[in-house]
Amino acid sequence: MTGAGTDSTRPQRTGGPAIVLVRPQLAVNIGMCARAMANFGLDDLRLVSPREGWPRTGAYRKGAYAAAAGAVHLLEGARLFPTVEAAVADLNFVYAATARERGQAKPVHLPREAMGASAARIAAGEKHGVLFGPERTGLDNDDVALADAILTFPVNPAYASLNLAQAVLLTGYEYFSAAHGQVAPFEVIERSPPAQREMTLSFFEFLEGHLEERGFFRPASKRPVMQRNLRNMFHRMQLTQQDVRTWWGMIVRLLEGPRENPQTRKRVKQKKTPAP
Amino acid sequence: MTGAGTDSTRPQRTGGPAIVLVRPQLAVNIGMCARAMANFGLDDLRLVSPREGWPRTGAYRKGAYAAAAGAVHLLEGARLFPTVEAAVADLNFVYAATARERGQAKPVHLPREAMGASAARIAAGEKHGVLFGPERTGLDNDDVALADAILTFPVNPAYASLNLAQAVLLTGYEYFSAAHGQVAPFEVIERSPPAQREMTLSFFEFLEGHLEERGFFRPASKRPVMQRNLRNMFHRMQLTQQDVRTWWGMIVRLLEGPRENPQTRKRVKQKKTPAP
Repeated sequence: MTGAGTDSTRPQRTGGPAIVLVRPQLAVNIGMCARAMANFGLDDLRLVSPREGWPRTGAYRKGAYAAAAGAVHLLEGARLFPTVEAAVADLNFVYAATARERGQAKPVHLPREAMGASAARIAAGEKHGVLFGPERTGLDNDDVALADAILTFPVNPAYASLNLAQAVLLTGYEYFSAAHGQVAPFEVIERSPPAQREMTLSFFEFLEGHLEERGFFRPASKRPVMQRNLRNMFHRMQLTQQDVRTWWGMIVRLLEGPRENPQTRKRVKQKKTPAP
Repeated sequence: MTGAGTDSTRPQRTGGPAIVLVRPQLAVNIGMCARAMANFGLDDLRLVSPREGWPRTGAYRKGAYAAAAGAVHLLEGARLFPTVEAAVADLNFVYAATARERGQAKPVHLPREAMGASAARIAAGEKHGVLFGPERTGLDNDDVALADAILTFPVNPAYASLNLAQAVLLTGYEYFSAAHGQVAPFEVIERSPPAQREMTLSFFEFLEGHLEERGFFRPASKRPVMQRNLRNMFHRMQLTQQDVRTWWGMIVRLLEGPRENPQTRKRVKQKKTPAP
């Protein structure tokens, strides 16, 4: 979502199932598949007789490279095969990605379970792959017959048409999530440490004391409920130590008025409320 | 992957979080987001000051509609807002989708946990939404400050750049999987019922009897191991009743030779092996 290209300073993840594009029609889609693969560390791209040939010079190749948005290593490393049989020859397990039931009585897997199982078996040394058919027609029955299982995506039945790169993306996403866990691609910053309960309670007493003094808790019979609700709101914030200091400072300022006159930079004299 | 457009004969799924595209640059990306939303039944598209305006006639609008590949109802129903504040005014919980840590000490959620939680709370009547920033720069810090939490995607750290429609796609996928389960969008066809063990054992005895007679089990001391391996291979096939009949017919044919002469259509006389 922010710029494009490979960042060689960040850890590179590789591996996963081979992505086999069977008779892809458009170079731009090959490029978009390469980009989706790079997002999830897949690095084995295989092409079975692309409609317009591969590699090619000129606009065709340029379109693929532009769509790959920096995942050039995948296009450079893509291997070309004349047949699906040749493309899957070294694989131990092959899925056929299809959007429809294909009447072949093959096991039908959803991406989460399929890639979970494949991640474990790939880690144990097997080679897996997924066949994706041409954009318009999908895999034909002979292609599907070469697979061990069908991979299909849990989509809105009324609008089940996923584009090629999106199907590759979901496959990569589930492989990556299974192989590396769902973790953010960056270090989550250190917040200030969570406040100790003692610190929070001391703040509550300070705040509630002033609220009591100013007649906030009315009628008095409601004070316990009002106080409980107020404290619960603060607990839901999961206050850090810094957060408690910020709140304390904010309440002091509300009680005391302006700290200084911005015009004269002179301190405005007020009754001082003791801070802890 | 096979054709495009809405199939009004299939169940339509709707609902889910609002997708808020903040200052999107390209109409084609708005269209691709609409398509990704339709794939997963999301139906609340909000646009905050698209760079080129909205709606528009001419090539801009045409590009969006072409990219939406039939998800026209989403483009027609998209609502335009002048600010992010206005776009999220009615929402109870807002995520900001970002690819980087934003230094705002907000909770960081991955799509699976986030959409799991949102699906439950949306089902209980809350309205949730996800902000997605402009293609090149992503959300700015003021946009992120309006959100309750950050949504980020578990990607290859060396290649973390997801395009806009792909980020929307993964969000929709996880919402749909949480709300409706990971289920295939078609009925898995009825296979023949699984074979009863009696039927399978009867086939094993038939096959092994002929193999024994023809001297397959050599040396005889290995017969128990060979037989066990053979039976295990068949068990792994999870044979249906039809499968067992097919195997039986195939073995009979191997034993007996051609059933008939294709030229003369006359039955070739052979020693008959009894079928069950």
